[in-house]
Amino acid sequence: MQLGLVGLGRMGGNMRERLRAAGHEVIGFDRNPGVSDTASLAELAEKLAAPRAVWLMVPAQYTEATVDGLIEVLSPGDIVIDGGNSRFSDDLPRAEKLDQHGIGYIDVGVSGGIWGRENGYGLMVGGDEQHVERLMPIFDALKPAGEFGFVHAGPVGAGHYAKMVHNGIEYGLMHAYAEGYELLTASELVTNVPGVFKSWREGTVVRSWLLDLLDRALDEDPELADLSGYTEDTGEGRWTVDEAVRLGVPLNVITASLFARFVSRQDDSPAMKAVSALRQQFGGHAVRKN
Amino acid sequence: MQLGLVGLGRMGGNMRERLRAAGHEVIGFDRNPGVSDTASLAELAEKLAAPRAVWLMVPAQYTEATVDGLIEVLSPGDIVIDGGNSRFSDDLPRAEKLDQHGIGYIDVGVSGGIWGRENGYGLMVGGDEQHVERLMPIFDALKPAGEFGFVHAGPVGAGHYAKMVHNGIEYGLMHAYAEGYELLTASELVTNVPGVFKSWREGTVVRSWLLDLLDRALDEDPELADLSGYTEDTGEGRWTVDEAVRLGVPLNVITASLFARFVSRQDDSPAMKAVSALRQQFGGHAVRKN
Amino acid sequence: MQLGLVGLGRMGGNMRERLRAAGHEVIGFDRNPGVSDTASLAELAEKLAAPRAVWLMVPAQYTEATVDGLIEVLSPGDIVIDGGNSRFSDDLPRAEKLDQHGIGYIDVGVSGGIWGRENGYGLMVGGDEQHVERLMPIFDALKPAGEFGFVHAGPVGAGHYAKMVHNGIEYGLMHAYAEGYELLTASELVTNVPGVFKSWREGTVVRSWLLDLLDRALDEDPELADLSGYTEDTGEGRWTVDEAVRLGVPLNVITASLFARFVSRQDDSPAMKAVSALRQQFGGHAVRKN
Amino acid sequence: MQLGLVGLGRMGGNMRERLRAAGHEVIGFDRNPGVSDTASLAELAEKLAAPRAVWLMVPAQYTEATVDGLIEVLSPGDIVIDGGNSRFSDDLPRAEKLDQHGIGYIDVGVSGGIWGRENGYGLMVGGDEQHVERLMPIFDALKPAGEFGFVHAGPVGAGHYAKMVHNGIEYGLMHAYAEGYELLTASELVTNVPGVFKSWREGTVVRSWLLDLLDRALDEDPELADLSGYTEDTGEGRWTVDEAVRLGVPLNVITASLFARFVSRQDDSPAMKAVSALRQQFGGHAVRKN
Repeated sequence: MQLGLVGLGRMGGNMRERLRAAGHEVIGFDRNPGVSDTASLAELAEKLAAPRAVWLMVPAQYTEATVDGLIEVLSPGDIVIDGGNSRFSDDLPRAEKLDQHGIGYIDVGVSGGIWGRENGYGLMVGGDEQHVERLMPIFDALKPAGEFGFVHAGPVGAGHYAKMVHNGIEYGLMHAYAEGYELLTASELVTNVPGVFKSWREGTVVRSWLLDLLDRALDEDPELADLSGYTEDTGEGRWTVDEAVRLGVPLNVITASLFARFVSRQDDSPAMKAVSALRQQFGGHAVRKN
Repeated sequence: MQLGLVGLGRMGGNMRERLRAAGHEVIGFDRNPGVSDTASLAELAEKLAAPRAVWLMVPAQYTEATVDGLIEVLSPGDIVIDGGNSRFSDDLPRAEKLDQHGIGYIDVGVSGGIWGRENGYGLMVGGDEQHVERLMPIFDALKPAGEFGFVHAGPVGAGHYAKMVHNGIEYGLMHAYAEGYELLTASELVTNVPGVFKSWREGTVVRSWLLDLLDRALDEDPELADLSGYTEDTGEGRWTVDEAVRLGVPLNVITASLFARFVSRQDDSPAMKAVSALRQQFGGHAVRKN
Repeated sequence: MQLGLVGLGRMGGNMRERLRAAGHEVIGFDRNPGVSDTASLAELAEKLAAPRAVWLMVPAQYTEATVDGLIEVLSPGDIVIDGGNSRFSDDLPRAEKLDQHGIGYIDVGVSGGIWGRENGYGLMVGGDEQHVERLMPIFDALKPAGEFGFVHAGPVGAGHYAKMVHNGIEYGLMHAYAEGYELLTASELVTNVPGVFKSWREGTVVRSWLLDLLDRALDEDPELADLSGYTEDTGEGRWTVDEAVRLGVPLNVITASLFARFVSRQDDSPAMKAVSALRQQFGGHAVRKN
Repeated sequence: MQLGLVGLGRMGGNMRERLRAAGHEVIGFDRNPGVSDTASLAELAEKLAAPRAVWLMVPAQYTEATVDGLIEVLSPGDIVIDGGNSRFSDDLPRAEKLDQHGIGYIDVGVSGGIWGRENGYGLMVGGDEQHVERLMPIFDALKPAGEFGFVHAGPVGAGHYAKMVHNGIEYGLMHAYAEGYELLTASELVTNVPGVFKSWREGTVVRSWLLDLLDRALDEDPELADLSGYTEDTGEGRWTVDEAVRLGVPLNVITASLFARFVSRQDDSPAMKAVSALRQQFGGHAVRKN
């Protein structure tokens, strides 16, 4: 089928290729003319036959403006799909705004990173059944070949919600491996730490795609000597903890993983300075000065 | 090759089958005559040609006594392999005791649970190179068919150490999925929680064998209604935290996973009673009485 | 000086008494005519000489409506003081709304609970210097007699912000004692747990007012047998964690204390059911059924 | 009464002064002749009238050797008191060793740090009733003047156990304040952070001796600019977590406080390097290189 695709960066560009390889007609728009198929959103709308479907794959901070731009050029009966990293709570207001113009809305959480073009993307979809039905050929082309990788998770917002939780879990999984890595490197007994991780890739309870990637990283740099521990976070982890707090759900593991990223970005910890100050005050403990 | 195998329970029994299917001659001993190939350790030793290799697959609390029994019947040049869930710190004293009788020792952490007979077992091995070499035909038969699933992790103790860390990571991984599950079930938006987990099995960053198993469990019981949250722990998680404390390694995620199991076994929390008592004292907050 | 006081519940009623004992003229309004000095906000405004100062001590959900009611009856040059448990982020919009009517605004975090009438209240104040100056006679009467207990923490919002952090710290302090209590009760060695807490009240590093209260609670009920561990939370703890997430500050201790309250209110843990399900799947571990 | 006191460092020296000021006859021994009253343990024993009481205040690593030395010079009916930071599990074996020579044993956890000489020391005592009775004059002189500060917590070991838990709680309390400090410094709203802490010293729920000390530290250095966050730990925190693990008690807060100290001593985190490596692998996320 025909699809408009707005945002042709690392993710969007790969998705266009995967969709075209599956026989779909993709007309892309990007601010960068070097990768864009059209000169403007208006031209994009013109080239698509109604009823149109336009998939957004833009950084979250540009999503709302892009939706506003599309409202100018789309028609009743069209559908907008947001595949970017929007916060789930933005989806319903956005859907209602589009609905006032007769335009449908679907939110899609997309997982898979740079590997998705080859392996397919994990897709978590929120929206009305009828809208989801119309897009199924596109979802089928983007998802992996097997029986998994796609879910219609619920009404508008549910797709990004499921993706948010997916990323929260991802934080926890990564940190569990990371802690195991640190303990193994601290041990006097285990002399072949990369070999241990490699061995775990089959036959063990902890085998996973993330473990495969960690083994790959250790193949390239067995002591991770070239990397800094300084680690960014990209929003979904924080939203997951916010939701935990709002709903009264205890997420000790995921929150600890998020907080460890915060710590990784500190040169020194104000909290630990306060602990040092207290130890010096009550115990006369020698503490380290700056 | 020929192998003596002591302990023919769920794990040992399956391993005997996998080894025999690979063409090895396994002579088993178990306290339960219904599954045992021999009447005693002495008979086991008699039936094996020297130099012998005897693999222990007994509950950890019986390992030391079994080793003592084997010392009575084995000869210099023989090897004992402990594939059970021993604490790594017991390995070196055990190796030294056996060494006084000229008997070698290898420790093996075995992962894979009830699926190992079919898929192969993940094997983490500690011991001298020469001893490990001698056992390679056995390891090759037990491990999965692919290139992974086996590591010689270091000297005596390193096998059980690696397995301990494996299980610590396993605690963290399981709890990360579990927290995501709880948040999804608490959400008002996501209406198809089992479907979300199923979809994640391909194309996503969180795909893993544990996720496959969670999907399997949700297929059988979509709301996990038949299960209690009461959860045991089996030693390795505690040893992992003990090691973290000993070595000064911060394991927030794995420790939180272990502590959540402790909480799951409490009818009421003495700590939270104390918090309740304090709130009543300072704020006149209404608190719940027993 | 003269003060209007809206909300004469447990906190407001006590504060009226403390202020009157200090010689201030307090005119109170409450929806409950049995405790109110006036029949309406309008009558309250009438009885106060301009420029007026009206202190709100109402439950947070009624604050905005009460402010709206006051705007109807107050005049330019008057000041509204919110001493309730408002979220700090509500303060600036509220101040701006009042400012459009020429009315000033101060936010005050009030600590001390039911003990404040006797001991004085800890006051954390946010607002313009000139407004704070005008209210100093009131603050001086409410605060404890000594040199502490009052701070002008910053501009509008800073008072409730400081109170929010105060309560976050309070969660952590309470839980630290609570964990120590639980460990002592679990120990086989310590036979006099209440005596240990009582002894700590002088000479130790952990002495505090909360410890005094815990000792008091243990005097009344040495095993806390009459209390349930079920524990509510009242907002400030959650806001503290939200702020930590927003600002990228790692609050492991305070967050763990909050999450422990969430757990205390669960009959069974969905997360631990998922862990149980996984253990059953991979290990054939016997798990507890409902 | 007469007391032998072995170890006249910062703690022991202060205790000698406090005891002498209370009218007791203290004969001290220290390896440092500049502070010692006697030339040897033998001379110490000679100068004391039987039945003797000898209090040890030596670093934990010298305790066992000192006890062995005392066995050589003491007589049946004498008592040894260990007031140092011994691990509680060392107490019973030590008591049994001394008992074979007819010598009694008491373990005392001593709190109060450098302030104890003036304020008195918090004392947690383990041992037989008859031994404790004999030492009461000494305990009365060391403890604070009021009704608190002393407990006979249980049999041998209970004193050090209670002190261990005291220190575990102390870790949690300190970290709760420290987290609040960090959040306040990160806030854009609160402009007077030291003032907030100072105000909390009266009238609030969080008032405590540790808070007084933190205020004192902020008076000296309002931004704690001279201090490093690098923070040691001295054993009791680790033992507390070990006990939690052994007894199955969930100590999330205390453990998080301990782990934060571990983190404070790392230049870079191996765990976070592993997280960085994973993010780079799956997402092509730009990560920081060393």
